[in-house]
Amino acid sequence: MKRNVLVIGAGGVGQVVVHKCAQHNDVLGDIHVASRNVRKCREIIDSVHHKHAMKVPGVLEPHALDAMDVDATKALIRSTGAQIVINVGHAFVNMSVLQACIETGAAYLDTAIHEDADKICEAPPWYANHEWKRRDACEQQGVTAVLGIGFDPGVVNAYAALACQAYFDEVDSIDIIDVNAGSHGRYFATNFNPEINFREFTGRAWTWQDRQWVQNAMFEVQRTDDLPVVGQQTTYLTGHDELHSLSQNLDVPNIRFWMGFGEHYINVFTVLNNLGLLSEKPVWLDSGQEVVPLQVVKAILPDPASLAPAYQGKTCIGDLVRGRKDGQAREVFIYNISDHADAYAEVGSQAISYTAGVPVVAAALLVAQGEWDVRRMVNVEELPAMPLIRLMNGMGLPSRIREGSADRLLD
Amino acid sequence: MKRNVLVIGAGGVGQVVVHKCAQHNDVLGDIHVASRNVRKCREIIDSVHHKHAMKVPGVLEPHALDAMDVDATKALIRSTGAQIVINVGHAFVNMSVLQACIETGAAYLDTAIHEDADKICEAPPWYANHEWKRRDACEQQGVTAVLGIGFDPGVVNAYAALACQAYFDEVDSIDIIDVNAGSHGRYFATNFNPEINFREFTGRAWTWQDRQWVQNAMFEVQRTDDLPVVGQQTTYLTGHDELHSLSQNLDVPNIRFWMGFGEHYINVFTVLNNLGLLSEKPVWLDSGQEVVPLQVVKAILPDPASLAPAYQGKTCIGDLVRGRKDGQAREVFIYNISDHADAYAEVGSQAISYTAGVPVVAAALLVAQGEWDVRRMVNVEELPAMPLIRLMNGMGLPSRIREGSADRLLD
Repeated sequence: MKRNVLVIGAGGVGQVVVHKCAQHNDVLGDIHVASRNVRKCREIIDSVHHKHAMKVPGVLEPHALDAMDVDATKALIRSTGAQIVINVGHAFVNMSVLQACIETGAAYLDTAIHEDADKICEAPPWYANHEWKRRDACEQQGVTAVLGIGFDPGVVNAYAALACQAYFDEVDSIDIIDVNAGSHGRYFATNFNPEINFREFTGRAWTWQDRQWVQNAMFEVQRTDDLPVVGQQTTYLTGHDELHSLSQNLDVPNIRFWMGFGEHYINVFTVLNNLGLLSEKPVWLDSGQEVVPLQVVKAILPDPASLAPAYQGKTCIGDLVRGRKDGQAREVFIYNISDHADAYAEVGSQAISYTAGVPVVAAALLVAQGEWDVRRMVNVEELPAMPLIRLMNGMGLPSRIREGSADRLLD
Repeated sequence: MKRNVLVIGAGGVGQVVVHKCAQHNDVLGDIHVASRNVRKCREIIDSVHHKHAMKVPGVLEPHALDAMDVDATKALIRSTGAQIVINVGHAFVNMSVLQACIETGAAYLDTAIHEDADKICEAPPWYANHEWKRRDACEQQGVTAVLGIGFDPGVVNAYAALACQAYFDEVDSIDIIDVNAGSHGRYFATNFNPEINFREFTGRAWTWQDRQWVQNAMFEVQRTDDLPVVGQQTTYLTGHDELHSLSQNLDVPNIRFWMGFGEHYINVFTVLNNLGLLSEKPVWLDSGQEVVPLQVVKAILPDPASLAPAYQGKTCIGDLVRGRKDGQAREVFIYNISDHADAYAEVGSQAISYTAGVPVVAAALLVAQGEWDVRRMVNVEELPAMPLIRLMNGMGLPSRIREGSADRLLD
């Protein structure tokens, strides 16, 4: 049993995570929130109290922290007595937070893969470039590290593992489809940090096809599906974290990721990208100033958190799995539908933050209660899927399975 | 008679102006070129010598100058003995260069209206906000100042005055149409300094309609014409310098400016503008850096000068004039066609710089020879048009007039 949680990161996902931890503080114990900007931690804590979200009276405290500083992070883990660290900070801090957990024995959970600021779309598998280099260290220290337990990566990995184990004898393909059919009503905005958002699409799209890594250009390959609730949706082959562990951990020849984009988004993205405005490499102005164009684009776009109050509509994220069972061809779609306005009403964030933040808190509960406290580094598909899925069914993220004309809650 | 020319500005137009001055240095005398960046002056001078463009042996010298510094500009005018100053520098330096001319007695010529860096599309008439405030000073000092003598503004003003004087009893409308039917082969680029180029389109489009100033949004109003040589072209109602003097100096109820844009240009412009990336107002990055987005866009776009070698195709700029003559309705189109590759072969710049730079040198010749040395501040429509038009016919910028099916050289 582990108790006391340190949440690192106070953006849109951090907002969801802290609210959900507060709703389960009878199990999780003290809740601490740390960010470079302590004001953002305080605002989240205020919103928790405003919604009376604490299940039982307890500790909920803000901290200023530069999570790139391993010693400072270790000191905060020790001073707070946190046995579980939920890292929902910037993707650049994963490795330093992980190191602090290894050196203090705290369990480590994150929702996205590590990135180095100066590298985009490295050679696959991405986890081998960073996190997996600490596998042996976790094993030796008996440290639990659950990588990528947001929705995608995360829940979609659990769906993939479940399909292989329970629904198929042999799986030919897993197509992870992520559609935001909602609208924020602004000319253009990204749903999370633009710097991280755009980095997903400016490089090559690596996917796993016929048991090999294949590169495509972004927006080169598309598909259209009739999805539950959100209907006909066009999505594009995209590189994404989960392919880099699923391809190594599951015996499936084709694992692809598809993200939905509207024509307007693609047009704006294409213009910015072709002009070089999404580049992470600095340029020099006439004034002599050295400026990273992508950081300027970030500065002029709406703050993603500011979109939540007006966000309407639903998201649909799931795994379309094809293969054979008992000699018959089979196809299932395992998925979740989330509603932006419902998420905002409950925790003050839109559904994209909600779907990323709820799973990592469910995972923290499973670690706290021992079921996922595996004392080594794992990706989600290596853990039992149904405990996570059942727990989330009661936490606002129900999973469903559609097969032919049948569509039911997965429990 | 005036002699010795100081050219201020060493961009694409400066390149044309210096070449053309050199081709006429028997009349103009010594040629001096000044810029903040003296290297650019030297490169232009090297290209003049490379093309053996000096008509007679003579002085052709580079100078470093901050033209915002009135005292430094006066000192350079005096030390060079320049009696004619051709200002083709940044639009922000007009007022300081003009002041230096007033205080030294040198004739002043420019090709575009003054702008203050922090103001976009001020209330009309624009000249009254800046240059015209120095009219009395020019009159008192007997200083010749010819404002806006590029192609547009400039030659199109001469066409307008000529039409009113020689072709019509009464003019209903003058539509100035500017089409670049050429191609630079790049994804996106502006044909001159992006900072100045975009500023023309980010504000309101002020035009003179029914003897009043009317505001439209950019790209709100379009027309399509079948133009000589370049054929069917769509142009958009745009605010432009010349409307602000022609409306005051000619008795014409409708004076409008139309600029041609391709759909791709409009799309890129619209995306950048809607996102706020064309703003001259600074934003703050996460790093704390203060950055002007428009300057970043300038930094990532191709240097306009770099487009010239590959530029193909032609420009068409002219005045479509409608009215009555001897009781009959009449319509004439007075225009020039220029070729990008021809301009590059002659002076190393594309046709957009060429059409701006040749007229100001023709004007300098008319000032040097006395015909335009009026010892006061004027816009081009206040001067005799035919001497300019005839001179340019022999300088690479022939003017033509089309009426019905007839189309002839204007001389």
